[in-house]
Amino acid sequence: MKLHILGCHSATPRSTVFPSSQILEIGNELLLIDAGEGMQIQLRKYKHKFNKIKHIFISHLHGDHFYGLVGYLSTLRLIGREKEVHIYAPIGLKDIIRLQFKITQTDINYPLYFHELSASISEQILDTDKFSVTTIPLEHRIYTNGFLIKEKPALRKLNIQVVKQFPEIETWAYHHLKQGKDFVCDDGTVIPNQQLTLPPPPPKSYAYCSDTVYKPDIVPLLKDVDLLYHEATFLDQHKDLAAKTKHSTAKQAAQIARAAQVKHLVLGHFSSRYPDESLFAKEASHIFDNVSIAKEGKCFEV
Amino acid sequence: MKLHILGCHSATPRSTVFPSSQILEIGNELLLIDAGEGMQIQLRKYKHKFNKIKHIFISHLHGDHFYGLVGYLSTLRLIGREKEVHIYAPIGLKDIIRLQFKITQTDINYPLYFHELSASISEQILDTDKFSVTTIPLEHRIYTNGFLIKEKPALRKLNIQVVKQFPEIETWAYHHLKQGKDFVCDDGTVIPNQQLTLPPPPPKSYAYCSDTVYKPDIVPLLKDVDLLYHEATFLDQHKDLAAKTKHSTAKQAAQIARAAQVKHLVLGHFSSRYPDESLFAKEASHIFDNVSIAKEGKCFEV
Repeated sequence: MKLHILGCHSATPRSTVFPSSQILEIGNELLLIDAGEGMQIQLRKYKHKFNKIKHIFISHLHGDHFYGLVGYLSTLRLIGREKEVHIYAPIGLKDIIRLQFKITQTDINYPLYFHELSASISEQILDTDKFSVTTIPLEHRIYTNGFLIKEKPALRKLNIQVVKQFPEIETWAYHHLKQGKDFVCDDGTVIPNQQLTLPPPPPKSYAYCSDTVYKPDIVPLLKDVDLLYHEATFLDQHKDLAAKTKHSTAKQAAQIARAAQVKHLVLGHFSSRYPDESLFAKEASHIFDNVSIAKEGKCFEV
Repeated sequence: MKLHILGCHSATPRSTVFPSSQILEIGNELLLIDAGEGMQIQLRKYKHKFNKIKHIFISHLHGDHFYGLVGYLSTLRLIGREKEVHIYAPIGLKDIIRLQFKITQTDINYPLYFHELSASISEQILDTDKFSVTTIPLEHRIYTNGFLIKEKPALRKLNIQVVKQFPEIETWAYHHLKQGKDFVCDDGTVIPNQQLTLPPPPPKSYAYCSDTVYKPDIVPLLKDVDLLYHEATFLDQHKDLAAKTKHSTAKQAAQIARAAQVKHLVLGHFSSRYPDESLFAKEASHIFDNVSIAKEGKCFEV
């Protein structure tokens, strides 16, 4: 699992930074999380394959989190996309996209599914062989969700040196062993799976929380995640403004990370009022050790 | 009058070039012509003042010509715009913008006027003290207009050395002289204006034609314009594709420029299939001498 930042700044446009958008790479799949304006330019810049994205998650319907989506969806038509695309977003986005396709006379040539979100409690919205996605109810000026992406446990690894000591274990049985099954010999003897295989690497988890006021009741959902991206629009000196605009400070993001005992905190969604983003890391690091600053083009291994 | 190119490429996104968008500077005013995605990033990059734009002209409702508009209009709210904004665009854009403002709960704090275009013949859509704007009916896959912007004649210039020879011409009379009036002395003697003033520089004109199939019937509208921006999506080797997609080739753009006897032709809206844009200039220059290639950040004095 790898997190690629396409954009991590708040709405005010600048020529060098982009609004919220990121790619979570899981195995061979790319999940797109939020799609601020210019997102497809960033996809090109960082050489992500447009066609590899099947699932798109939009946290909320403020422009700096989705104005880049319609351009990307139009480009998929241009480049001959045939595979389906799924969009998980609050109610309203479907109407916005469909109206634009109607008026621009855009006939998309791929199946496009909208999964409209409106629940106020956490819900699982996607479940595949490899991972699941669950919403994290956030509190902002408009209906907003974060997203929790959890890998499923991988198959166990063959301890091939041990396996080779048993000639009766033929290769057809390997897949069963990887699935955790014991091996039963023809004479009924059982060779326990634990003797033949090694545990897989622990499944990873990633949580995306933007935009939100300080909301400690999400902590149980974030418990022990490997990587937490939490918005930090403001510094503590502007905590009143954060509360008023329903955003968080770097300190508050760190408090969430500490309470949830996450392994790594990445801060983003920075307001343009601060000239130096290292201030966010400095403020958060008083409360939580392992903190990083998001930046366009940066990649975080989960 | 100056033309600033913000974007001049066709729809396929790239990380270094942008879709159609440009600024026409007339005196102290900036006119925005088309607004492809990323337009506001380009405005920032080339240091154009967001607040100086009052009139916005959208040629047609294909995404590469307007997907950047809603972000720009949202930013105006963020930066506290109070002055009115006028948008001249085909029917449909108003609905698209309004739906997005409704769903994103964006309350703009400035008056926003939509002037919806649907005429199939040329019409004057704006008339100010300094300039007028007239549509140029184009033919594309969707309803499309080009725009012809004509400066009004400036005031005549005082020939101050001559004026000073007549002590009876006091400064209060200067404005009348600049307007072309003769000076009448107290004794009834008339000093002809031509003796006292110099002609102003001739008014300039600019025509924007994108997107369109080769359409020679626009030539009379373009007659003698100082600068013509004409789309050249394709080279002559792909003229069948140009006809099919209702675009022009560089050669066809040059034919229009030659027939209209314009002073300077700028080509733009290049397809991404050609690695070298100088090919467009080369092709056009066989037919028309004064041809340039548009490029992001480039400025053309009219």
